[in-house]
Amino acid sequence: MASKFLPSFSLPSNLVLDSLIRPWLLEDIGRGDRVTQALMVKGSQAKSATWIAKENGIVAGLPIAARVFQLLDPEMEFEVLVKEGARVMTGETLAKLSGPFEALLTGERVALNLAMRLSGIATATDQFVSQLEDLPTRFADTRKTTPGMRILEKYASQVGGAVNHRMGLDDSAMIKDNHIAAAGGIAEAIALVRAQIPYPLTIEVETENLDQVQEALDHGADIIMLDNMGLELMREAVQVIRAGGDRVLIEASGNVTVERIRSIAETGVDIISSSAPMTRSTWMDLSMRF
Amino acid sequence: MASKFLPSFSLPSNLVLDSLIRPWLLEDIGRGDRVTQALMVKGSQAKSATWIAKENGIVAGLPIAARVFQLLDPEMEFEVLVKEGARVMTGETLAKLSGPFEALLTGERVALNLAMRLSGIATATDQFVSQLEDLPTRFADTRKTTPGMRILEKYASQVGGAVNHRMGLDDSAMIKDNHIAAAGGIAEAIALVRAQIPYPLTIEVETENLDQVQEALDHGADIIMLDNMGLELMREAVQVIRAGGDRVLIEASGNVTVERIRSIAETGVDIISSSAPMTRSTWMDLSMRF
Amino acid sequence: MASKFLPSFSLPSNLVLDSLIRPWLLEDIGRGDRVTQALMVKGSQAKSATWIAKENGIVAGLPIAARVFQLLDPEMEFEVLVKEGARVMTGETLAKLSGPFEALLTGERVALNLAMRLSGIATATDQFVSQLEDLPTRFADTRKTTPGMRILEKYASQVGGAVNHRMGLDDSAMIKDNHIAAAGGIAEAIALVRAQIPYPLTIEVETENLDQVQEALDHGADIIMLDNMGLELMREAVQVIRAGGDRVLIEASGNVTVERIRSIAETGVDIISSSAPMTRSTWMDLSMRF
Amino acid sequence: MASKFLPSFSLPSNLVLDSLIRPWLLEDIGRGDRVTQALMVKGSQAKSATWIAKENGIVAGLPIAARVFQLLDPEMEFEVLVKEGARVMTGETLAKLSGPFEALLTGERVALNLAMRLSGIATATDQFVSQLEDLPTRFADTRKTTPGMRILEKYASQVGGAVNHRMGLDDSAMIKDNHIAAAGGIAEAIALVRAQIPYPLTIEVETENLDQVQEALDHGADIIMLDNMGLELMREAVQVIRAGGDRVLIEASGNVTVERIRSIAETGVDIISSSAPMTRSTWMDLSMRF
Amino acid sequence: MASKFLPSFSLPSNLVLDSLIRPWLLEDIGRGDRVTQALMVKGSQAKSATWIAKENGIVAGLPIAARVFQLLDPEMEFEVLVKEGARVMTGETLAKLSGPFEALLTGERVALNLAMRLSGIATATDQFVSQLEDLPTRFADTRKTTPGMRILEKYASQVGGAVNHRMGLDDSAMIKDNHIAAAGGIAEAIALVRAQIPYPLTIEVETENLDQVQEALDHGADIIMLDNMGLELMREAVQVIRAGGDRVLIEASGNVTVERIRSIAETGVDIISSSAPMTRSTWMDLSMRF
Amino acid sequence: MASKFLPSFSLPSNLVLDSLIRPWLLEDIGRGDRVTQALMVKGSQAKSATWIAKENGIVAGLPIAARVFQLLDPEMEFEVLVKEGARVMTGETLAKLSGPFEALLTGERVALNLAMRLSGIATATDQFVSQLEDLPTRFADTRKTTPGMRILEKYASQVGGAVNHRMGLDDSAMIKDNHIAAAGGIAEAIALVRAQIPYPLTIEVETENLDQVQEALDHGADIIMLDNMGLELMREAVQVIRAGGDRVLIEASGNVTVERIRSIAETGVDIISSSAPMTRSTWMDLSMRF
Repeated sequence: MASKFLPSFSLPSNLVLDSLIRPWLLEDIGRGDRVTQALMVKGSQAKSATWIAKENGIVAGLPIAARVFQLLDPEMEFEVLVKEGARVMTGETLAKLSGPFEALLTGERVALNLAMRLSGIATATDQFVSQLEDLPTRFADTRKTTPGMRILEKYASQVGGAVNHRMGLDDSAMIKDNHIAAAGGIAEAIALVRAQIPYPLTIEVETENLDQVQEALDHGADIIMLDNMGLELMREAVQVIRAGGDRVLIEASGNVTVERIRSIAETGVDIISSSAPMTRSTWMDLSMRF
Repeated sequence: MASKFLPSFSLPSNLVLDSLIRPWLLEDIGRGDRVTQALMVKGSQAKSATWIAKENGIVAGLPIAARVFQLLDPEMEFEVLVKEGARVMTGETLAKLSGPFEALLTGERVALNLAMRLSGIATATDQFVSQLEDLPTRFADTRKTTPGMRILEKYASQVGGAVNHRMGLDDSAMIKDNHIAAAGGIAEAIALVRAQIPYPLTIEVETENLDQVQEALDHGADIIMLDNMGLELMREAVQVIRAGGDRVLIEASGNVTVERIRSIAETGVDIISSSAPMTRSTWMDLSMRF
Repeated sequence: MASKFLPSFSLPSNLVLDSLIRPWLLEDIGRGDRVTQALMVKGSQAKSATWIAKENGIVAGLPIAARVFQLLDPEMEFEVLVKEGARVMTGETLAKLSGPFEALLTGERVALNLAMRLSGIATATDQFVSQLEDLPTRFADTRKTTPGMRILEKYASQVGGAVNHRMGLDDSAMIKDNHIAAAGGIAEAIALVRAQIPYPLTIEVETENLDQVQEALDHGADIIMLDNMGLELMREAVQVIRAGGDRVLIEASGNVTVERIRSIAETGVDIISSSAPMTRSTWMDLSMRF
Repeated sequence: MASKFLPSFSLPSNLVLDSLIRPWLLEDIGRGDRVTQALMVKGSQAKSATWIAKENGIVAGLPIAARVFQLLDPEMEFEVLVKEGARVMTGETLAKLSGPFEALLTGERVALNLAMRLSGIATATDQFVSQLEDLPTRFADTRKTTPGMRILEKYASQVGGAVNHRMGLDDSAMIKDNHIAAAGGIAEAIALVRAQIPYPLTIEVETENLDQVQEALDHGADIIMLDNMGLELMREAVQVIRAGGDRVLIEASGNVTVERIRSIAETGVDIISSSAPMTRSTWMDLSMRF
Repeated sequence: MASKFLPSFSLPSNLVLDSLIRPWLLEDIGRGDRVTQALMVKGSQAKSATWIAKENGIVAGLPIAARVFQLLDPEMEFEVLVKEGARVMTGETLAKLSGPFEALLTGERVALNLAMRLSGIATATDQFVSQLEDLPTRFADTRKTTPGMRILEKYASQVGGAVNHRMGLDDSAMIKDNHIAAAGGIAEAIALVRAQIPYPLTIEVETENLDQVQEALDHGADIIMLDNMGLELMREAVQVIRAGGDRVLIEASGNVTVERIRSIAETGVDIISSSAPMTRSTWMDLSMRF
Repeated sequence: MASKFLPSFSLPSNLVLDSLIRPWLLEDIGRGDRVTQALMVKGSQAKSATWIAKENGIVAGLPIAARVFQLLDPEMEFEVLVKEGARVMTGETLAKLSGPFEALLTGERVALNLAMRLSGIATATDQFVSQLEDLPTRFADTRKTTPGMRILEKYASQVGGAVNHRMGLDDSAMIKDNHIAAAGGIAEAIALVRAQIPYPLTIEVETENLDQVQEALDHGADIIMLDNMGLELMREAVQVIRAGGDRVLIEASGNVTVERIRSIAETGVDIISSSAPMTRSTWMDLSMRF
């Protein structure tokens, strides 16, 4: 598999990828690719094909698509022609494939489905990120991801210019309103959580008003999320938190749109998170041509 | 688990569902739900919650969400208040949950992610289907589905009013342009495939012009897909095929929009397929309240 | 792995095969091949061996046997000397193997067990199929297969000259007496099923008398199974169905023997199905010689 | 699940059984039991059914069939009416089932396939075993079993009256001709193997003549297999071995038929092994009636 | 399953535990618990037993042992009599078990192996932790854990009084000497890592001298590890870091013994990490009595 | 992968090893090796490293460590410089590694954890075994092994000079006090077990006094374990058993220490088993240097 580009984004090793891709291929193949198998009576042939963009957008997932084909047949070649994260135009050639006919045909749909979904996410993410240009505020994703696809969807988010938020329930501790209620208050919740979690993990607290912001700040939250606050309230919250230095990261969340994101950023928050690139984006249209 | 509604759509048995849901839960939980585990020091408590629609739409996936919680804790109750496929309004209560606090909190995100994605698909499907009201033409999905989610996404498509197209490469034989080229023609491709596939399976042939339509018809295709044809050409193709009786199903595909679908249907095709409800829809916003 | 023969029958890709073969090898190896491991102290040696037929029969499964050895050691060579489906005689050499001694010894039993079972099925199938020579009627298998082996047993059935019936509960809809009873009649059952299944799937109805045949015919069954009917009744049923054209496939089932199959075929049915090659066949004796 | 019989034979715990049965159910169900799911629109109903013998034979596998249904639905009841190993006649009722309609229908084929194959093995085994009545010689199975089914097929063999031979390559060390050749002789092979295997494991040596028998005896084989010897040679071999006491078990193998087994036993061997009940038996016909 | 104690430490939900325990049970059971299965011919009996400490120590893992038995048979009762983390004496009764005889016998070894290993870790951890009494410094574990057991071994570490370090390569970013070399310096490494990781994750830098400490501090490390430094150097490093406030956590590692740990803590570091409770501890002897 | 040494000990084939190692790598990697992935932006580099002993001891597990790296990247080279079981000194180089930087870093911890644990076991085993030099008595392990690691820990035990005891509940039948009680006596227990187990399996009986020894002997036990007996009683038991010839193997167990083992051996027992090398050993310190 040839590629002239460095892997600029965080993809886990093939051991991890393969454990995801194998069941996805089996989902589509089921008990066998009926048509391709029937054609094999005529013998296996080496073929080549190209991948073409059918929409403008930001490309993500080509190295993963390459792995899809290789798991079907190690002789498959998938030459990536554009860098992950490249802005491409309708009609542009993204990759050249060659290898056994049957792997090309059997793998086509799964590989395209992945790349189309991931490129769609990258493209939508880019629309938010590009509003923040020249500002220090970063754009982050959430845990609203398609079940089974989180690692790859968060990879696409990164390709689109976002910084990833936590990957699951275990790599950072987010204390939400229901946790606070169960614990009996923000102070109690932070204390319980700090006492139990691996020490390098950070604690984030969701807050809805200045009192909660102050309580989270006083009890050592590492990240304070301003949840669904208006711009004015956000500005006040940022002031309150910054009064204690810049030790604490401030995340804004809720009602984040492309139109509104820049004004949120200008309140001084460090991070703006939104699930929109996962839940409100469309797939980028790509196709394979022989 | 109580429900006052019959299962009106095709959900496979729990054995199949569980094999999907378990890895999705483990994806989110990772090595443990840090915050919820920490709160357990205060003891497990029974809690109740509701699921609320935050957008208008067609609901799909509540029985699956119920199963998510039950796999975490068999004591969880998830009472579905609206029928799958119901049209709901912002603010409507969709389900009542009760059970151990920790299962409620740990399962919330995966369950909501599933129901939001599936309801989004059902809602988008409904927009196409409702254009076909009073026409005999049915709307179908495609194999452009999120890897790992096909069974559930196609279920949501059905909930939204569509009929499912084939589920994978093995339950129907679709002969596409590349297969035709490899076989040396439509006649040859049909012959090779018919000789190999399980006999109850149907053969569908993708066609781009009337010559191909005629060749597919002459060699016994069960379904003829009119791929990316204009309305006029479609009408002619339908006439050609119907001249041989109504044995053959006619599927139209390509450039299917909500605006255009009715005029396609009026050409007399039996089925119109589109990936748009999977690839162009947004998730329906739902939330859980304690 | 060298082979001079085209794959004339429908084997799924290695990704599917490997997911079957790996647990079968682990079943036999358990915590380790005690004797072979002990011999390894003397070092690994390359060896060669042959596979010999110890009975006359139809060979099936050699490419699968080859894969068994390759999963143990990618350096294993397994040269197939006879085409799948070839009629071989006692003493005939079927394949030449060479590679690391330990893979040869550890893989021998699983590979032979597979090929013996599959060749036994192909041989028994051939006995039925050869009775149908020069008739249009085809011979089909059923869902009576050894749990876990269906894909391969149905492959062997095809090698033996049969056409496969459906592969599972999901790639065709077979409405049986209990379904009819639960639905409240054939018409109701067909209506319920047609409304729910993927549209390319066919519906087959099991019938026991002419009334049922007529009802199935009237309500659009794609395949009508004449279940355990006498020859006279079958002839009448065929007449009834053909009166409506040749849109509907007719399958005969029940009490199918090598002696009786030709007379069944002569009633004009399209398909005769029987589980006998799976449930009444013996394994073909094969052995490996160093 | 009710049963009035003790488990008289060696079935592993449900944890082991379930890991076998689950993938077998998924093999048949695939993406869903199309017909049964469609009928569910009319609601789930409790039904009852019986299992009937359609051939005379020895029944095996009913507790396993029960588990098949329970894995589909824990509410399924499967009352076993005849003891494992019972000799039953055509028409006899073997079990009563009741529970949700959909579990009954979806599980039927897998459960019957298992019980039919296992009862066929038990029945065939019984034919060999009954020839040995009043003799001390026992009948044993081999490693020629259907891939994936070994634990259950060997269970059926036991139900039919056999004693199991080793279960895999790891629970006893069988030194065969190729091992002997690779080691440089029987003495060398035994020495290498004894030095490496877990100490409670026995060593069996395949022998073809009296020299080999003597060598195996001299170097401490625990079991000596007389492979494909004539009756006369077997008698001599038994004498040679018994001269050294009865420490060593003697197994006869090769060319074992129902007709010949008693004369083999009368040579004085301890065990006669044959794969015939696995490789030469037919399935016992059973059916389910509502 | 009865327990009068709150779960005071971080155990993940049963979904996670079960995915660990099932293969461990299958490892021991293999193809069946030979002796227990044989005894079942006499019928299943309910039995009770107790777990007894045969050494003084800190108990950990009893809820996990309970789950082992329940996975074998849901009817098993395992009443925990001492709280996780309790200091027990030789002869003390730790738990009462009752349930089907076969589950008691089959599960005994796996359950005891787990509890013995985990209690051994808790006991050894306690020896380090008790040296830190009245000091603010906490004791932490490392990634030197038995493959496959990390979640449970880290749980035992917590039961013994430690705070967990990161759970794997993905929930915190530890920059080591080889990473620094590859990146071209601490500054470069921190920049590369910060740009790629999920934003809530912390970055820890391993340092060997004051220059490295200063560089890590200047470039925004969240945690600075003083690796194998002498006490004097550690004190200086702490001073350097504290000069910048208490934003940065300081971890000491290397050459940590029970004798030396207090003097390390007195240098003012926040955390002292050591693999010794995993790699240098012995299992606590426990036994089951009927 | 180069190695100049023969595999002198019983390692199962890679198919078995890989099924163990893959989940262990995934346990550590989780959703990705954060730091290594971030460094990949600078491109992949080939690096080399060495493994060094940081303690004196007996090395075990280097071929397994090699496989860990190869599963991450097939291009990894791991040249073993010392034979399994070699006695090495602090500072000695054990292996040379080279290959892609990211595989070296990502695999380091899992590979080292395995080799350190296994070398610790081999080293501790050697201390017992070396006490038996010039005596015929062999030293054996037990089923007290870390869950999930039994095959490898027993391999290390063998490397350290022990002979393995049974590998699980299924490859030999050990009748313990609770089994005896349930069966109603040793004679009854042996009879039940002998009737059910595969015939090549041996039966071992745990005995606590001479009466039990005699009963076990009289009823055909293959191995008699003298459980926790004093030296005098052991000597008497050996005499009783040897009076019947040397057909029966005698195992001593309980209170086995390095100091006491030789005197136990001198009672004439064949095998002395102890879990101490698994439960009382420390890991051997090894490190990887670039």
